[in-house]
Amino acid sequence: MSYKILTIDILKAYILKIEVIKNYLEEGDIEIDEIGDGNLNFVYIVTNASNGKSLIVKQAVPYLRIAGEGFPLSRERMNYEIRALQFYEKVLPAFVPKIYYADEAMSLVIMENLSEHIIMRKGLIEQIVYPKFSEHISTFLAHTLFYSSSLYLNSREKRALVDRFNSNTELCKLTEDFVFTLAFMEDETNDVNPDLLNEAKELFAQSDFKKSVLKLKYIFMTQTDALLHGDLHTGSIMLNADETYVIDPEFAFVGAFGFDIGALIANMINAYISHFYRSKDEIYQAWILETIREIYIKFEEKFLLLWAKNPNSALLKEGFIAQKELDEFKAEFIQNIFSQSVGFAGCKIARRVFGIAGVEDIRGIEDAEKRKQAELMALRVGKSLILNYENIKNVDDLVDFILSNIELYKN
Amino acid sequence: MSYKILTIDILKAYILKIEVIKNYLEEGDIEIDEIGDGNLNFVYIVTNASNGKSLIVKQAVPYLRIAGEGFPLSRERMNYEIRALQFYEKVLPAFVPKIYYADEAMSLVIMENLSEHIIMRKGLIEQIVYPKFSEHISTFLAHTLFYSSSLYLNSREKRALVDRFNSNTELCKLTEDFVFTLAFMEDETNDVNPDLLNEAKELFAQSDFKKSVLKLKYIFMTQTDALLHGDLHTGSIMLNADETYVIDPEFAFVGAFGFDIGALIANMINAYISHFYRSKDEIYQAWILETIREIYIKFEEKFLLLWAKNPNSALLKEGFIAQKELDEFKAEFIQNIFSQSVGFAGCKIARRVFGIAGVEDIRGIEDAEKRKQAELMALRVGKSLILNYENIKNVDDLVDFILSNIELYKN
Repeated sequence: MSYKILTIDILKAYILKIEVIKNYLEEGDIEIDEIGDGNLNFVYIVTNASNGKSLIVKQAVPYLRIAGEGFPLSRERMNYEIRALQFYEKVLPAFVPKIYYADEAMSLVIMENLSEHIIMRKGLIEQIVYPKFSEHISTFLAHTLFYSSSLYLNSREKRALVDRFNSNTELCKLTEDFVFTLAFMEDETNDVNPDLLNEAKELFAQSDFKKSVLKLKYIFMTQTDALLHGDLHTGSIMLNADETYVIDPEFAFVGAFGFDIGALIANMINAYISHFYRSKDEIYQAWILETIREIYIKFEEKFLLLWAKNPNSALLKEGFIAQKELDEFKAEFIQNIFSQSVGFAGCKIARRVFGIAGVEDIRGIEDAEKRKQAELMALRVGKSLILNYENIKNVDDLVDFILSNIELYKN
Repeated sequence: MSYKILTIDILKAYILKIEVIKNYLEEGDIEIDEIGDGNLNFVYIVTNASNGKSLIVKQAVPYLRIAGEGFPLSRERMNYEIRALQFYEKVLPAFVPKIYYADEAMSLVIMENLSEHIIMRKGLIEQIVYPKFSEHISTFLAHTLFYSSSLYLNSREKRALVDRFNSNTELCKLTEDFVFTLAFMEDETNDVNPDLLNEAKELFAQSDFKKSVLKLKYIFMTQTDALLHGDLHTGSIMLNADETYVIDPEFAFVGAFGFDIGALIANMINAYISHFYRSKDEIYQAWILETIREIYIKFEEKFLLLWAKNPNSALLKEGFIAQKELDEFKAEFIQNIFSQSVGFAGCKIARRVFGIAGVEDIRGIEDAEKRKQAELMALRVGKSLILNYENIKNVDDLVDFILSNIELYKN
């Protein structure tokens, strides 16, 4: 089937021709609603009003949906989303929406409608505690990263995986530009708070932290550790008290171990900062910090456990090295993942301040003075993490570092 | 044209049907000789006895030529050789044999016959001084590495390059196994000198240096800096006093900057060590060490010059960072390439001692006692480099390090 855009008037007929979809929805009164909040893609909820069954239809168009046809963006991005979802479904089916149907030629995926879950960013703004989140997301990170790495796959499988994701060029380039470059220099794509023009100018003139940004950008571009989600912020997570789902992996590619972890932590730190100016809810803030701690500690535990269970891989051959030295190697390896993730977190936090894409947690603060203070705090914390990431060796260091930085800058 | 093996009886008719080859050779008495020294491929010299014109025909077969059909090896390796030669021809035509014809489907390449040049390994054994070699090979390394890296290419070009070479799986796997793994543990593929059984046993039982081998192996497998030759030892170089050619890039893939440099230096160090037991020609040995020094210094100069001339790339955008910090970043970047190349050199030297593939320089020493001493010296130097590579910051450190190690172990 050659590609065509499924406008709302032809969508119903199209999807009901797909046997598995027709069987899932069953006969009845089929309703279709467009969800307006997708930046890149068209997203619809399809509901059978007769039996309450529903699903999500997502189709990429060859441009940026939110900006229109004047902003072309290859619809092949959907291939990578489909491939990543399929990988996750194989490795950890409980953490991704069930895929009912996928068609790369149509840039189309039809999947489970997560009707009882909300976007995590919203939940964090509303001070909702998710007691199982650190348990879930650490499992997600440990499993997806480990099972797609050279610590588990053999050489052939690893190169085949790189092959399937290597050409996600345009979305990798968006990250290279918007996370690692343009948000830290004068650029027309930036969106600087008019109250912070001087601070932006000052940041753009600083070069000390940019040396570290370049190092991290280079790692992002050239390190092929494992399959990344590629955009694992709190807007890519849907959850409730009991379940956690990861969605929207269209930025997926084989990249550096620390990048997804860093993205997640960055967004948790943004939420933490925002509550100095939103709720002033210290108990909630303490929960966020403790969750960051737990994510790291559980990730490390789970990752090392998987590694211990799989002694042969592209990297390792049983009998090559004694246990003592192998354990030392692993400890250094994990510490390096941790440090890099702190660096990536710093870039992700700092880039949200003046760059094209802000986060609701902070940019959504209505009081102008509070918003300004929150942005300044995020900027300073982000920059400090970038400058010091190689010296932050474990999560206790990280939490201490955040607290002392915030102490320094809090009014 | 679908693949078939060009046995010597059908070769002439086949190549004379190729217009460009027919035109090059011209009418006359065409003679064909098989060159017996290829391990992997069939190689023929085709000569027109009437006018003296000649060329090389090289075809990959779906097995290891030297071992026979019982050792299958995908003939697609020739695709990567052809692609690498084409890249080199574009970037630096003076340093590779001219390609007259290439056909990936036939795993076939027809190229210039370098009749006035010899394999460098042979020349080094015969104590021939190559006064222009450091100048040539530093240019080759600087240009091929720089122009295939994210310091020159844009993101799209870089990912396209990775795509063209990523699936050279089997040959990458040979390196993973034979350079980074099996030569350092009990394995049936090893070829241990019977006079060194105890020393081999001792090495295989040591794990301190293997931690570093694992680090380097991991870098080899997951770092996509630049297009590598992948097997740049002195057997892959043909030269005379005036010209230097790089041949046989079938191991080509996008890998770590330091790997080709390390391979080359390793083989120069092996030649240096061999002359303690072959010629005892101190002047020649001094020339080898000085050549190593010059290769590094000139490589760095040329690489940085190319970088200075190309301020925009996947990594860099003019105006992003001030000159001072950019220069610091570059200095650290180059130093990191240097250290890694020392580590790779160590692996390459050490693996030649007990591993499957020895080097003629050392294994070819006829006197058993001298050969044993040379092997021990190579083993110790290689292992020391592996253990200390991260602390060897420049080429003077490296030369001092080699000299002091050799002083320590010389009888």
